[in-house]
Amino acid sequence: MSTEPLCSLRWNPQSQVVEVIDQTLLPHRLHWQALETLDAFCRAISDMQVRGAPLIGITAAYGLAHALARDPSREQLHSAAAALLATRPTAVNLRWALNQVEEALAPLDPTQWAAAALAKAESLREQDIDCCSRIGQHGLALLRELPTDGTINIMTHCNAGWLATIEWGTALAPIYQAHAAGLPVHVWVSETRPRNQGTNLTAWELQRAGVPCTLVADNACGQLMRQGLVDCVIVGSDRTAANGDVCNKIGTYLKALAARDNDIPFYVALPESTIDWCCPGGDEIPIEERGQEELLSISGADPAGGPGELRLAPAGCRAHNPAFDITPARLVSALVTERGVCMASVSSLASLHGREE
Amino acid sequence: MSTEPLCSLRWNPQSQVVEVIDQTLLPHRLHWQALETLDAFCRAISDMQVRGAPLIGITAAYGLAHALARDPSREQLHSAAAALLATRPTAVNLRWALNQVEEALAPLDPTQWAAAALAKAESLREQDIDCCSRIGQHGLALLRELPTDGTINIMTHCNAGWLATIEWGTALAPIYQAHAAGLPVHVWVSETRPRNQGTNLTAWELQRAGVPCTLVADNACGQLMRQGLVDCVIVGSDRTAANGDVCNKIGTYLKALAARDNDIPFYVALPESTIDWCCPGGDEIPIEERGQEELLSISGADPAGGPGELRLAPAGCRAHNPAFDITPARLVSALVTERGVCMASVSSLASLHGREE
Repeated sequence: MSTEPLCSLRWNPQSQVVEVIDQTLLPHRLHWQALETLDAFCRAISDMQVRGAPLIGITAAYGLAHALARDPSREQLHSAAAALLATRPTAVNLRWALNQVEEALAPLDPTQWAAAALAKAESLREQDIDCCSRIGQHGLALLRELPTDGTINIMTHCNAGWLATIEWGTALAPIYQAHAAGLPVHVWVSETRPRNQGTNLTAWELQRAGVPCTLVADNACGQLMRQGLVDCVIVGSDRTAANGDVCNKIGTYLKALAARDNDIPFYVALPESTIDWCCPGGDEIPIEERGQEELLSISGADPAGGPGELRLAPAGCRAHNPAFDITPARLVSALVTERGVCMASVSSLASLHGREE
Repeated sequence: MSTEPLCSLRWNPQSQVVEVIDQTLLPHRLHWQALETLDAFCRAISDMQVRGAPLIGITAAYGLAHALARDPSREQLHSAAAALLATRPTAVNLRWALNQVEEALAPLDPTQWAAAALAKAESLREQDIDCCSRIGQHGLALLRELPTDGTINIMTHCNAGWLATIEWGTALAPIYQAHAAGLPVHVWVSETRPRNQGTNLTAWELQRAGVPCTLVADNACGQLMRQGLVDCVIVGSDRTAANGDVCNKIGTYLKALAARDNDIPFYVALPESTIDWCCPGGDEIPIEERGQEELLSISGADPAGGPGELRLAPAGCRAHNPAFDITPARLVSALVTERGVCMASVSSLASLHGREE
């Protein structure tokens, strides 16, 4: 187990700069990338050195603070915010985090902006850590209820760990809390084709945290459940409809079907911020389609340890690559947010989050 | 579309030798490997240049004929049969095909063995082609019944095409028959991790036959069904229990669950020889586990077109790799064999195949 703190973004007090793990190099190389210019912040987001909605938003907030420390002018505020926003135009969390910083600056004199923006970025960071920690505590209570004698075998999909947030993660937070509490946990990590976030990120971050885990093909997940090797499934959510339908990484729906067929609890862990109260059901959520190259080729480490790329498919082959799928609420055993645990239904979700139905 | 015949094994009349497509080089290179020695036949099977139960058996039968043409002695018969049998010790079809040849030789004088063995190998080859063609005709009738207006969108898994047999295939036979009959078909090919038989073999062989197809991640199969993009699923079977439970490539069960959840027919096409009448149900079938390297690394074509291999997983990562899963009969809409179409049940299977229950 690593003695380094398990986080995806840190402040280097010597150099006075933000550093992030360059996730494009994982799992073959751990490199802390110093973000010393506004352009470096923008590229970190657009090139997916950082990914995961919470981490993207907080990185952008730090980027805005960085820009204002160099030039605390109104022009700089607008141009830096616009540049950061343009890095991933569809990321809701990015806009939200930048708005949070801008609102904090609004009543202040520009001479105070740099300090206030940095303070706001740091508070967003703390807020995210606290949110994920709470998700972990609520999820831990569910894990304690599972009828297992020895090791708790948990299946997850994609990466919803501390690499997608700042610390803890969402789906992995209960697992880290259980591990910290001394419960014997073991994680089945599905490789998560086509981008292999399970292999590249989840297996790597669980290893660093000292949590026992085993990589499996996405195809194997149903058979493992049939064989009684899975006590529960926990995944994250990219967007959750008001009725509890869950939009998450492609392949989530198949795991939910297998869990239901084998009477295994299927939990979804998510910050409240991913609930789209305006979206009545999953069928309203458009499914992003990504490039076919993700299926036709693959990257990894060559025998010398350097980056390599191989062609997989025959020449002239076409591919279709939806990035997300919808898991209907009827297949979700419970939703876990920073507020607690609830059923995947309109009334239960609204009640937990203090909203009128 | 290629003008070459679509088959996996051929007799070269000039050189008087058997040639097989070296499937380990697909999809990046088409190479007909001449099998000019008994050792070459053995290596073709053990190194998986040929794979698929029917093709393995017929290759072995030709290998035995080849050995006897050089030395038609009892010692040669025994040693060659033993060498061929040892190439894939668990392949039921391999032993069956060798037994067929040995039975044909039993009443004959050794001077007649070489010709008789070659004739038997050729008859097994013809028999397999005929069997697959019949499976295709019976499956075609099911495709004609689907309530689609335009293109018939068929999903398949792994490779159960002419590369796994001699011609036609099993799961792909109805698709080739439909294409030949002028029906507009389109095939969703799931990549079939971890060995990628969908990408390497099925996409390649469909392309050569001129059948429109699109590669998708195994993870995407449920979402495609939810989106109404799949009219039916057809897969093969490695072993079928007497009650209709199907043991097939890992990931088949997940497709069957998604098909059921979306009211899409799920068909399994198989030669009668894969039915294990002594096996009452799928839970009795042991699941082969393969090496973890299949998940930790991957091979493909490097930028120069040569073979390459990349490491995918972090150092020290463990993987678990079951090769097959069990799809319960309750999820199977129909079984298609060379005898016709039946329900996946003890009585229906036994009745179609003329057996007492």
